[in-house]
Amino acid sequence: MMKGKEKLLENLRYVFEPKSIAVFGASPTPGKLGNVVMKNLVLGEYAGKIYPVNPKYDEVLGHKCYGNVLRVKEKIDCAIVVTPAETVPKIINECGRMGVRGAVVLSGGFSEVGRNDLEEELAKAALRYNISLVGPNCLGIYNPYARVDSNFNPAYKSGRPGPGSISFITQSGAVGACTIDIAAHYGVGIAKFISYGNGSVLNEADYLEYLENDKQTKSIILYIEGAKDGRKLFEAMRKVNRKKPIVAMKAGKYGKAMKAAKSHTGNLAGNYLAYRAAFRQAKVTEAENFDEIFDFIRIFNQPLPRGRRVAVITNGGGMGVLTADALEMHGFSMPELEEKAKTTLRKMMPGYVNIENPLDLVGDAGVGAYEKAIELAMQDKNIDSLIIIVLYQTPRIDERILGVLTRASDDRRKPVAVISVGGSYTEEKRRVLEGYGVPTYAYPLAAVKALEKLTVYSEYRKTLK
Amino acid sequence: MMKGKEKLLENLRYVFEPKSIAVFGASPTPGKLGNVVMKNLVLGEYAGKIYPVNPKYDEVLGHKCYGNVLRVKEKIDCAIVVTPAETVPKIINECGRMGVRGAVVLSGGFSEVGRNDLEEELAKAALRYNISLVGPNCLGIYNPYARVDSNFNPAYKSGRPGPGSISFITQSGAVGACTIDIAAHYGVGIAKFISYGNGSVLNEADYLEYLENDKQTKSIILYIEGAKDGRKLFEAMRKVNRKKPIVAMKAGKYGKAMKAAKSHTGNLAGNYLAYRAAFRQAKVTEAENFDEIFDFIRIFNQPLPRGRRVAVITNGGGMGVLTADALEMHGFSMPELEEKAKTTLRKMMPGYVNIENPLDLVGDAGVGAYEKAIELAMQDKNIDSLIIIVLYQTPRIDERILGVLTRASDDRRKPVAVISVGGSYTEEKRRVLEGYGVPTYAYPLAAVKALEKLTVYSEYRKTLK
Repeated sequence: MMKGKEKLLENLRYVFEPKSIAVFGASPTPGKLGNVVMKNLVLGEYAGKIYPVNPKYDEVLGHKCYGNVLRVKEKIDCAIVVTPAETVPKIINECGRMGVRGAVVLSGGFSEVGRNDLEEELAKAALRYNISLVGPNCLGIYNPYARVDSNFNPAYKSGRPGPGSISFITQSGAVGACTIDIAAHYGVGIAKFISYGNGSVLNEADYLEYLENDKQTKSIILYIEGAKDGRKLFEAMRKVNRKKPIVAMKAGKYGKAMKAAKSHTGNLAGNYLAYRAAFRQAKVTEAENFDEIFDFIRIFNQPLPRGRRVAVITNGGGMGVLTADALEMHGFSMPELEEKAKTTLRKMMPGYVNIENPLDLVGDAGVGAYEKAIELAMQDKNIDSLIIIVLYQTPRIDERILGVLTRASDDRRKPVAVISVGGSYTEEKRRVLEGYGVPTYAYPLAAVKALEKLTVYSEYRKTLK
Repeated sequence: MMKGKEKLLENLRYVFEPKSIAVFGASPTPGKLGNVVMKNLVLGEYAGKIYPVNPKYDEVLGHKCYGNVLRVKEKIDCAIVVTPAETVPKIINECGRMGVRGAVVLSGGFSEVGRNDLEEELAKAALRYNISLVGPNCLGIYNPYARVDSNFNPAYKSGRPGPGSISFITQSGAVGACTIDIAAHYGVGIAKFISYGNGSVLNEADYLEYLENDKQTKSIILYIEGAKDGRKLFEAMRKVNRKKPIVAMKAGKYGKAMKAAKSHTGNLAGNYLAYRAAFRQAKVTEAENFDEIFDFIRIFNQPLPRGRRVAVITNGGGMGVLTADALEMHGFSMPELEEKAKTTLRKMMPGYVNIENPLDLVGDAGVGAYEKAIELAMQDKNIDSLIIIVLYQTPRIDERILGVLTRASDDRRKPVAVISVGGSYTEEKRRVLEGYGVPTYAYPLAAVKALEKLTVYSEYRKTLK
């Protein structure tokens, strides 16, 4: 059995990097899932061969359409299936006979609606041929490196992120879709996206193991409602998290929500406290709420801080106060800067600037003041991390600040989080910074909570040495 | 003294609805505060007379500039002052002699940097002539109804909201500026914006009293670091909150942050627990964090719910699960719909839709399914409030949903909160809905926390009858 699982993990390469794909249920009709998936591949510039399969059509989006997959003469690496549940086990069996070793089943109608029989049949077919099957009842996968995309939400409504280093394992398609849409909006790249739904053949623990050795993946989001095998999940989390930080969220925590989760992917939503304990023991970063997933994962591209001493640099006094409140609430200190740094700042700044931490450069600070203050904080022996608040609304801040902040984030002596609060102009700048990998937050608490998670993870990593 | 205070409150009309404004320190140089303020008035289509005052210039932005205000022959209602602190008391004295009864002093350099002498001199001058003085050390005021705007952040960087019903009293200019910028981004209108900084003549309690009788104001945000007179603030909050809901936030809660607040507006940041107790006793809605301010205030345009029974309608199962988790955590129930509603839904929906609460219409729900489900929940005797989750990413949701959601929000039988999670396309729709007054949230917890605040306020209002 272990042998079989290894083979399945190995065969996931046919799912993520297929040289050819057959789309079962391909359709020329806009709005149909089989149409969206075809468009993803064709318009998304997937470089491999595409074989639509649907007895109703001769051609779909310019590709010859096959009435039956058995008629395809060339080798097929991966099957993407959107046909009704009843038809899927047979399709997987046929695929197996044809040598297909990867499959993504988007179709619903299995255990989540009580059809456990159909789901077992499906799993049996996949296991018989060692087919790595993602799903059923899911959004499938997205790999921007290979331009493979089974997300059936149209691209004009739901953005597709570019290549990056964050991977995403999600039980809920909707939650996964929303998150990568947000990632695309902010220009945050991803490595692999896996919506596994009912997870009848491969589950969260398997995908974690797969990502442990995935070259592009540097950090992992895990969104889970109910695992099939809690012990196995715990072991996988603990092992992978040592190398690649995991941000995990458990949904379906309480009564009604647990029930809703059950009818959602057919998996029992386990006891939340057990998951919470597992996250803590595995030293995995828990996101308690949805917004924290994206807030937390973005800061893990920063170097790990050596301690809890933070320098806050701001051009808005009130935002400095709010950040200081949040830092103190989360166990950080804001020590004074070293004497030499204070002397330099005193010489450089107008007399009405108080040389404190938070360092309020005041509303008429220009880009140069930030540049100098950041360099001093980077050098300062009293400081482990930097939080830089930039209110773009002030008259003297111009777009050169983006270069200064990007350099600070790329510096890698100390972790940096940026806070920028505001409307359209500010959001535009946030998107630019995120695109350059600068973790940028819409309000103080979000940045502080993220920095705390990074700091706790850093403390954990130190214990491993 | 009480007489004087009444006169000052009365004279605030010269600040908010002046027929003429003198700008002290007006400048033709882009980037200067005196230039931004002039541009606000000229480009913002302020309809009254504008008198720039600055001995250096003959003309500023096409308006005749005066070397001394005493040379202006016409009546001036309000003075906006951006000149150095030392010059301000004299200016206010001159204004007093000229019959000016409103003043907004943006200049810093008073008690926040230890110049209590200058601030006392300033207050004395204002009180001598019953001048309602906003500031000093602030962003001043914004009244979209009269197009008066002393915000010195350029309009292209910091949006200006249109007319609406939310008013905002803030001690921190930066926090205020960011909030109205966010409001503008989402098309949320405001009634009055007041950044009062050091508050040397009028303070938060006075502005609350003023807004109690302001026709355009229906709800109030109060952002405070440290009040001069806690008892007076408490009384004002309690009185005004009975009529118009107040969302209050106290910043500078802990050690370092309290110190930072002191050097920010020269006011001692009082003990947080005392403020927290005051908020609770006055039944004011507390925002503990910055993001909650805007999240909470927006839902107060909805009718007050009769109880804690919520219907959740969704097209994304996972988001329904997350919302259910948050509702249960916040003491809400999700009862079954009435039998007749369930029967109707069963007839109408495909067989794989489970008629539960949360009601998951599943990913291929169209606009019609939402319309029907919303109407049933509005009629349903088991339901007090509606949370409607719309994931715009799904293929079958189109823009007609915006009309359905706007009608639900305008319906006024029951309060409605919308949750929409995603990137660019979704954000665009959120902005449209907010512009029509539909409280729309970026993730489940934000909506649930807001609905909880509305529900608690509703429970309080019932006790008053």
